[in-house]
Amino acid sequence: MTAAPADPSGRPAPGGVVPPVCTPLTPGLEVDTASLERLVGHLLDAGVDGLFVLGSTSEVAFLPDAHRRTVLETVVKHVAGQVPVLAGAIDMTTLRVIEHSRAAAEIGCDGIVATAPFYTRTHPAEIERHLRDVAAAVPVPLYAYDLPVSVHSKLDAGMLLRLAAEGVLAGVKDSSGDDGGMRTLLLRLREAGTTGFSVLTGAELTVDTAVAMGVHGVVPGLGNVDPAGYVRLYRHASEARWDEARAEQERLLRLFDIVNAGGTDRMGRGSSALGSFKAALHLLGVIDCPVTAPPQIPLDAAETDRVRRLLVAAGLL
Amino acid sequence: MTAAPADPSGRPAPGGVVPPVCTPLTPGLEVDTASLERLVGHLLDAGVDGLFVLGSTSEVAFLPDAHRRTVLETVVKHVAGQVPVLAGAIDMTTLRVIEHSRAAAEIGCDGIVATAPFYTRTHPAEIERHLRDVAAAVPVPLYAYDLPVSVHSKLDAGMLLRLAAEGVLAGVKDSSGDDGGMRTLLLRLREAGTTGFSVLTGAELTVDTAVAMGVHGVVPGLGNVDPAGYVRLYRHASEARWDEARAEQERLLRLFDIVNAGGTDRMGRGSSALGSFKAALHLLGVIDCPVTAPPQIPLDAAETDRVRRLLVAAGLL
Amino acid sequence: MTAAPADPSGRPAPGGVVPPVCTPLTPGLEVDTASLERLVGHLLDAGVDGLFVLGSTSEVAFLPDAHRRTVLETVVKHVAGQVPVLAGAIDMTTLRVIEHSRAAAEIGCDGIVATAPFYTRTHPAEIERHLRDVAAAVPVPLYAYDLPVSVHSKLDAGMLLRLAAEGVLAGVKDSSGDDGGMRTLLLRLREAGTTGFSVLTGAELTVDTAVAMGVHGVVPGLGNVDPAGYVRLYRHASEARWDEARAEQERLLRLFDIVNAGGTDRMGRGSSALGSFKAALHLLGVIDCPVTAPPQIPLDAAETDRVRRLLVAAGLL
Amino acid sequence: MTAAPADPSGRPAPGGVVPPVCTPLTPGLEVDTASLERLVGHLLDAGVDGLFVLGSTSEVAFLPDAHRRTVLETVVKHVAGQVPVLAGAIDMTTLRVIEHSRAAAEIGCDGIVATAPFYTRTHPAEIERHLRDVAAAVPVPLYAYDLPVSVHSKLDAGMLLRLAAEGVLAGVKDSSGDDGGMRTLLLRLREAGTTGFSVLTGAELTVDTAVAMGVHGVVPGLGNVDPAGYVRLYRHASEARWDEARAEQERLLRLFDIVNAGGTDRMGRGSSALGSFKAALHLLGVIDCPVTAPPQIPLDAAETDRVRRLLVAAGLL
Repeated sequence: MTAAPADPSGRPAPGGVVPPVCTPLTPGLEVDTASLERLVGHLLDAGVDGLFVLGSTSEVAFLPDAHRRTVLETVVKHVAGQVPVLAGAIDMTTLRVIEHSRAAAEIGCDGIVATAPFYTRTHPAEIERHLRDVAAAVPVPLYAYDLPVSVHSKLDAGMLLRLAAEGVLAGVKDSSGDDGGMRTLLLRLREAGTTGFSVLTGAELTVDTAVAMGVHGVVPGLGNVDPAGYVRLYRHASEARWDEARAEQERLLRLFDIVNAGGTDRMGRGSSALGSFKAALHLLGVIDCPVTAPPQIPLDAAETDRVRRLLVAAGLL
Repeated sequence: MTAAPADPSGRPAPGGVVPPVCTPLTPGLEVDTASLERLVGHLLDAGVDGLFVLGSTSEVAFLPDAHRRTVLETVVKHVAGQVPVLAGAIDMTTLRVIEHSRAAAEIGCDGIVATAPFYTRTHPAEIERHLRDVAAAVPVPLYAYDLPVSVHSKLDAGMLLRLAAEGVLAGVKDSSGDDGGMRTLLLRLREAGTTGFSVLTGAELTVDTAVAMGVHGVVPGLGNVDPAGYVRLYRHASEARWDEARAEQERLLRLFDIVNAGGTDRMGRGSSALGSFKAALHLLGVIDCPVTAPPQIPLDAAETDRVRRLLVAAGLL
Repeated sequence: MTAAPADPSGRPAPGGVVPPVCTPLTPGLEVDTASLERLVGHLLDAGVDGLFVLGSTSEVAFLPDAHRRTVLETVVKHVAGQVPVLAGAIDMTTLRVIEHSRAAAEIGCDGIVATAPFYTRTHPAEIERHLRDVAAAVPVPLYAYDLPVSVHSKLDAGMLLRLAAEGVLAGVKDSSGDDGGMRTLLLRLREAGTTGFSVLTGAELTVDTAVAMGVHGVVPGLGNVDPAGYVRLYRHASEARWDEARAEQERLLRLFDIVNAGGTDRMGRGSSALGSFKAALHLLGVIDCPVTAPPQIPLDAAETDRVRRLLVAAGLL
Repeated sequence: MTAAPADPSGRPAPGGVVPPVCTPLTPGLEVDTASLERLVGHLLDAGVDGLFVLGSTSEVAFLPDAHRRTVLETVVKHVAGQVPVLAGAIDMTTLRVIEHSRAAAEIGCDGIVATAPFYTRTHPAEIERHLRDVAAAVPVPLYAYDLPVSVHSKLDAGMLLRLAAEGVLAGVKDSSGDDGGMRTLLLRLREAGTTGFSVLTGAELTVDTAVAMGVHGVVPGLGNVDPAGYVRLYRHASEARWDEARAEQERLLRLFDIVNAGGTDRMGRGSSALGSFKAALHLLGVIDCPVTAPPQIPLDAAETDRVRRLLVAAGLL
């Protein structure tokens, strides 16, 4: 593994295991701050290296601004500087993203994560302008979020290298699933001698191989459920214990089947996946209520039982 | 043409020519309320039947919440009840859309326009739940916005008919471009005897034929530039003067070429189209500044001149 | 309606109602030539103006080359010059399309219809080279087939105008569903004074409005089932009897519901649509066997009965 | 690495390094059989474990049937049983794929590779019926080809497991780029104790990590240019020499930049990639002519020189 690059600003550069933190809700759909604090404690106790709040796994797309603010305030205060906290600033275009970013920076997050524009029909020149404008307007490091499944465009590798070299971006969270592309980016960054740029993968099922390719960190949604597993996996891989890493990754891969609990007949994959993470956290006693935000379809009793059985099989329950 | 259906609530049901109102900005990217009032006057003077604010043509995806509020307050106050005002509540999911919707209703709009969820991976059952939840939470009529190019899903006709029959939806703004589907919907609504449901097409180039199919209104972005032309066109078509309607539509079709002023090499189609509408409004003296919100790429002088020449050719300048 | 343009070669230019002819199969999946001849007779007797064989409705994508040859030979011989016969040359790229085209021309078709390359990742310059190469290699007129749902790219209007002006293409079969784009093309062709270029729409539900826009012909799949209806519709529209045209179109629109007979749960839309056309032709006694080619899923008895009831409702049975 | 599974039929199961063989053409666009034999020799001399002809890298989508037959005959005869030869049977639907498959089996290939239906709108039930029908009709093992970029659907993992367990499929060539999905499939196959099913990855840039995940073989297009490099890489990885594997993979990753030689401005990615492979083989003296089939755009002199420089940098020239 390549060591996480030093941030020229002196801030701790997020790297290692950086779970995207679920957002526990009350039955009345308010942020359940007590459960959120317990979840943060659950993650920190497992030894994670950073936290990513207000990403897809956090249901950021479902949270009103006041909810987002509560999440950030709760987590930043509870973490109290023990690890870096990255905050998603997920919105359609530049001015809206800048507003979210500034609010997050004021609350004290250590970095912002922003996608390309979405909903609008866009263009590579507009994506680059967007990231430059956001970076210029925000007082903390900016990470690009490559999430084609939501954004419907893929970040161009040449642009990332350019913005990395200029220091506009501090890194990328790559949830594109394009491992060949990510590896090319990693190699080019290394050959260019670019420092201060972290590549974090959003892939949960290929952490060992991603570390072998040189990523600086992983952002596994399933890390909410089994953070200790991901910490072990990451350490095995970082220290080149490949057999142990593979065994741990395969155990987590089996556990990952919880995301299929709801199927695709009566709900979308997002409802099933986020519902299963929250069902698992509820079954583990970490959060008080497994509800997800509307219009997601909730898991029923049989589907929740499927989650329970997989937790048992994984040795977590 | 089928007459615009009566709204059971007694509110005026939007129909006829309902332009989606551009949002003039100052060079500093604030809402230019004086220009916005002039634009509203320009539209009302031409005899439009309603206004749609905070839609795609309004750059809603680019406007922070405070801008959106200013737009709504300015337009609702300036219109002063002369025509119905619909407001887009464009955001990713239910709770966020409800917030925008309530804010718009408080300001005094006559109806809300909302898309299916986007950014998240969704499912027909989630789309239906979303529209039902929004309708239940909002005190004014709800119109579904069918905009696959932005939302990446198409509203299901069966669902629209169901929500129309139940009175959940007051109409649909169809910008899907699927004229066969729209016509099927219109026929099924008529056969079911459903009233209180308006079908508004977003297509600018097929107003005469859409009226022939029975739509209740049209929402042409180009109507910002030549509202009188669209009013004439709509009246010709509504009164079955098909030859006059066709001639007017073809004149507007030639004018519509302004949306290609910026091309697709150095900017996206959105930048070119919205930039051309604003350039035209600026050249016509309606608004003070043609700037579009970031990260859109502005038209350059040559591109703006292309707009100017098409305005001259259309007899507008 | 603009009259169908004269073909400089003196060949009859296809225009008017040009149904895409279904391909009846035997239970053993051979071409049922007797049924095919009856189907051709059924169409000619209704007064259609041309035939399009080996298009999507013909299950061309499902037919081996020998089947394609049998279809062409059977139809060309049976038509015996009464109306023009266009033949689809549907394959992935240039050399393969040229082979199909030459075979069809030798058999005696009056024109070839070819899509952009598919399966391969392509580019506008490659699409243009493809159409130019095919046109240069084939001794009969070439029509471009715009079918994004199958080909996953849209033909560029500028390219079509260029190839029309140069005489490379004799027309376009537009199944893109983009009526605004088609109308723009029609207007630009007229303004450029281009002759010898036919625009044929594949849309079944908007024939009257397409004629009002100036198309030269329509290629309705449903025309297999009710060719007389489409001939009446087209004549009403061509002679500006808009009310009669609308009524006929709406009757056909109701009949078109047969394409939903199979639903989307247990089969694809193609299986349902093509299966319903063949079920209808079988119920009407035109063809001997309603089987579709594998891997399409056949309609079951209940689904076939749904087709039957719609035929009854349309006055056809 | 998991050993390549035994084929119950006793045939050698393809595994290890199985390059997809380019199809050299003459300037007149015939198959250049002498160059093809040299290319096969170039690959066999490097120690590859099998060959895949008539895949995407072979320009199969561009080759008429007679060309396909010539390729197969030439390669099968030249290989003379030294290694297994898989043949792509790439066409739109079942009957056409069966024809290609039978022809290939008669010529003597050891297995057939077929995609889901394309061009038609399809459905999971139709994809499964398609693969079952093809397998039943063909006397050699069938491999499914998962290539969403061309086929526009992704093969369902549950279906693959079902067809593997029943012995319908002998394997899958996974070019979907979804490494998490591929790893899940590998784990499920292992846990189910399924034998006789090979997972071959089409990814060129992640061979070491794919081997670590347990794939049975790799099908690297770049293996045409540097087969010895891929043989070394595969052996390093199979014998757990991960550092040596990574170094070799990274060298090949740098070489892979040849696929960008043509850029995306004036040609598609396919033209650039296939053009660069052929340019490299020409520069290396393996094939006589670098021409690609129409409508691909050829590389110009400057682009070819970019290929040359990368070959020099990789130590191949």
